[in-house]
Amino acid sequence: MLKIGPYTFRSRLFLGTGKYDSAETQNKAIAASETEVLTFAVRRMNIFDETKPDPFESTDVSKFKLLPNTAGAKTAEEAVRIAKMAKAADMCDMVKVEVIGCDKTLLPDPIETLRASEMLLEEGFTVLAYTSDDVVLARRLRELGVHAVMPGAAPIGTGLGIINPYNLQHIIEQSDVPVIVDAGIGSPKDAAYAMELGADGILLNTAVSDAKDPEKMAAAMKYAVEAGRLGYEAGRIEKKFYASASSPTEGLSRV
Amino acid sequence: MLKIGPYTFRSRLFLGTGKYDSAETQNKAIAASETEVLTFAVRRMNIFDETKPDPFESTDVSKFKLLPNTAGAKTAEEAVRIAKMAKAADMCDMVKVEVIGCDKTLLPDPIETLRASEMLLEEGFTVLAYTSDDVVLARRLRELGVHAVMPGAAPIGTGLGIINPYNLQHIIEQSDVPVIVDAGIGSPKDAAYAMELGADGILLNTAVSDAKDPEKMAAAMKYAVEAGRLGYEAGRIEKKFYASASSPTEGLSRV
Amino acid sequence: MLKIGPYTFRSRLFLGTGKYDSAETQNKAIAASETEVLTFAVRRMNIFDETKPDPFESTDVSKFKLLPNTAGAKTAEEAVRIAKMAKAADMCDMVKVEVIGCDKTLLPDPIETLRASEMLLEEGFTVLAYTSDDVVLARRLRELGVHAVMPGAAPIGTGLGIINPYNLQHIIEQSDVPVIVDAGIGSPKDAAYAMELGADGILLNTAVSDAKDPEKMAAAMKYAVEAGRLGYEAGRIEKKFYASASSPTEGLSRV
Amino acid sequence: MLKIGPYTFRSRLFLGTGKYDSAETQNKAIAASETEVLTFAVRRMNIFDETKPDPFESTDVSKFKLLPNTAGAKTAEEAVRIAKMAKAADMCDMVKVEVIGCDKTLLPDPIETLRASEMLLEEGFTVLAYTSDDVVLARRLRELGVHAVMPGAAPIGTGLGIINPYNLQHIIEQSDVPVIVDAGIGSPKDAAYAMELGADGILLNTAVSDAKDPEKMAAAMKYAVEAGRLGYEAGRIEKKFYASASSPTEGLSRV
Repeated sequence: MLKIGPYTFRSRLFLGTGKYDSAETQNKAIAASETEVLTFAVRRMNIFDETKPDPFESTDVSKFKLLPNTAGAKTAEEAVRIAKMAKAADMCDMVKVEVIGCDKTLLPDPIETLRASEMLLEEGFTVLAYTSDDVVLARRLRELGVHAVMPGAAPIGTGLGIINPYNLQHIIEQSDVPVIVDAGIGSPKDAAYAMELGADGILLNTAVSDAKDPEKMAAAMKYAVEAGRLGYEAGRIEKKFYASASSPTEGLSRV
Repeated sequence: MLKIGPYTFRSRLFLGTGKYDSAETQNKAIAASETEVLTFAVRRMNIFDETKPDPFESTDVSKFKLLPNTAGAKTAEEAVRIAKMAKAADMCDMVKVEVIGCDKTLLPDPIETLRASEMLLEEGFTVLAYTSDDVVLARRLRELGVHAVMPGAAPIGTGLGIINPYNLQHIIEQSDVPVIVDAGIGSPKDAAYAMELGADGILLNTAVSDAKDPEKMAAAMKYAVEAGRLGYEAGRIEKKFYASASSPTEGLSRV
Repeated sequence: MLKIGPYTFRSRLFLGTGKYDSAETQNKAIAASETEVLTFAVRRMNIFDETKPDPFESTDVSKFKLLPNTAGAKTAEEAVRIAKMAKAADMCDMVKVEVIGCDKTLLPDPIETLRASEMLLEEGFTVLAYTSDDVVLARRLRELGVHAVMPGAAPIGTGLGIINPYNLQHIIEQSDVPVIVDAGIGSPKDAAYAMELGADGILLNTAVSDAKDPEKMAAAMKYAVEAGRLGYEAGRIEKKFYASASSPTEGLSRV
Repeated sequence: MLKIGPYTFRSRLFLGTGKYDSAETQNKAIAASETEVLTFAVRRMNIFDETKPDPFESTDVSKFKLLPNTAGAKTAEEAVRIAKMAKAADMCDMVKVEVIGCDKTLLPDPIETLRASEMLLEEGFTVLAYTSDDVVLARRLRELGVHAVMPGAAPIGTGLGIINPYNLQHIIEQSDVPVIVDAGIGSPKDAAYAMELGADGILLNTAVSDAKDPEKMAAAMKYAVEAGRLGYEAGRIEKKFYASASSPTEGLSRV
């Protein structure tokens, strides 16, 4: 079971919303993924701007924990303001701190992310911090008391998969709070890999919403997370340079 | 459904036998994998050498299709002789041609593999040919009429995963018979990756038998194959160099 | 030519000192590398601790620009104190800010690195900041006014090469000051790769000092940097999925 | 020194011809590369087809050893016929056997390559065999007596670099004749890598001819080959998972 702050989850897959072609497709993907956590950008919601559509109009959100993110914020203050808006609308079980520092890569700003996390923790939020895979930055965030760190596999929406498994492994090895791999996952193998490295969960959006068949991809990702987690628990074989017979016949006379 | 020669399979995972600590562990792994095809080295069996134990003594083999391999053969003639022995013992639904040409890497000998495949096809066997990932060699094998080609992901027992996804992709793209990725798989992400590339199935042995918890790893691999297959069918997103917002907020006023 | 602060260099290879078996080997490696910049850990010098040997006793340091680093510092204040010690000893043309935040990976602490850089810039130092490959952190350092950013290829002494060429490329693309790739280089191909990605220079220590033949490896690295730089300037070919004849014979009649 | 059959070379870089924009650019690239071996496709020459231009019209070929290739051949017989044509024109110091088995990847046909090599060896040619990176196939070619094996790094003209360093390393480790890495090199780092793995030389064409500045890229490749070779001889450091201080300060009191 995955525990983040006061919540416990059976599923280790968090799913993004708001990018699907239709509410119907979104609902099918949500169902196929068996996720228990839905994320969304507050600034895209009608709680932020009344003219926006409600992406959850046909979704029974009471069945899920809601994880609004602060996408669009470039400073800690903006992030805090966005988070409070979600709280006020009663749509904030946990908050994902997302403060972007680069328009081309959408990679997070380390300083503003630390500041926003600190401010939101003081306000009593359950904080999950989206961060680069900088090993020491992840430690700094944990020291503040965040409830989970969310290192990116690769920049948002690129589908490049886990570019730096090395850093990810060190972050996981050192962490005493859940590590949720966020951003950059492109396909099921990437999700499985993150979990095999010992991640506690993953957050997906584009990889599912922009797949040719989102519902089927959501199911694929569900199995991938399961596969990776079981693989992590089962303990994989060591890699070797030389082969060893998997059908050993040593000591047998030649035919 | 996967079709090889006269057989149809729901599961796309073939499982090796004979390397587990105990018959009990083997049976648990077989059950957890939900495989329909068991492979084994004829030369390790008591059908070959009466003093050998029967690795299937507590397994109801009638529930499975049996895929004996010719491991230990270094020539086509040896491979044929081993295959016939399996047939005579009524333990040969299909045969995996395995003729090793290098003791250090256990990589297959292209010439003897071609010859053995040709000879066994003439004898009426359903032939699956274990081969390197040489693209033209795979084509040559298909032209002979093999029922499936089995390119290695990496040398047997190394757990290095898919070293050359490029060649694998070309083999799959050109193939009109099933491509079963065989050898070298180390963890679930590797199995998922093979399937995402479009492989029709995978064959595993060491990755499961030598995992710390073989039964759990067998389950992990079952999910990984499912994840990879669904991911292939669902159509993954393209990779990009620059990020794109998965929670797009363009056009919104700043907070 | 490489320009950092007030200095101009023909060579783009900076070489570490203090790790060689003997002063003689160090001097041979320095000569073979044709470097113009020598780096050293102030805390290992007799300017810091009188009982320490002088690693430059047989080296004519007047021929080089000296780049002391603040290795051993865990806070900005420690780094500043170390840098001032080097300056007082007249061994500080430039200073490499190195504030470690993790004992296992020796990866830098982003916050203390920023603080130390700011403090040293105010004191008038020519500052080169050793940093992780966090894209936004590199931008933050540039905004402070550092004279060069030094992202790591991989953790110090690991020889893992460029783990994340993606981040490196973004850092380089966005930078208006020199980018010197520092730490993690294992072999000449890594040095060439960094330069091909557009890095302005590289800093090496372990890869040379711990090679079996340091003098020869220093020469290898010199050529690798040259190769990579020329390759960058020459403009490499695009990668393709399908082959194209390099000895094209299309349109020719068959033999 | 590199020895192939009766020839000895100081340079380990073989250069292709016939793809440059002009004879002038080709000559500049040849000069910058300092190659001693020029390769060319016989079928593109006027020795094969009188209407073809002479790519060497302004090159003093007497300064080089000539390595015609049999590109365009799909069978051993065609390859032999092409090789004999080159010999008859007195343009054949050595011959590169190239028998393509796949139009999309231009990967070689293992069977026809073996046959052509055998036939040409019987005719007394100095034979260099272009092959896939199949480890056992390379051994088979050596057993025939070829004077060098030329495994591809990646398909011709793709610039993908060394896709499978594992196979390459095994081929090199087992070989008692020179291993010249041929095809697929995209940039200097790839050339350096091949040489670091222990290759005896490399053959380039597209990576130089199609670079934005072929002359400069030729120089880059010359240095890359030198760097890789020296790096191989110098003995690189082992890779590590955990960092180790390159400016060790253990045992020192804190500042």
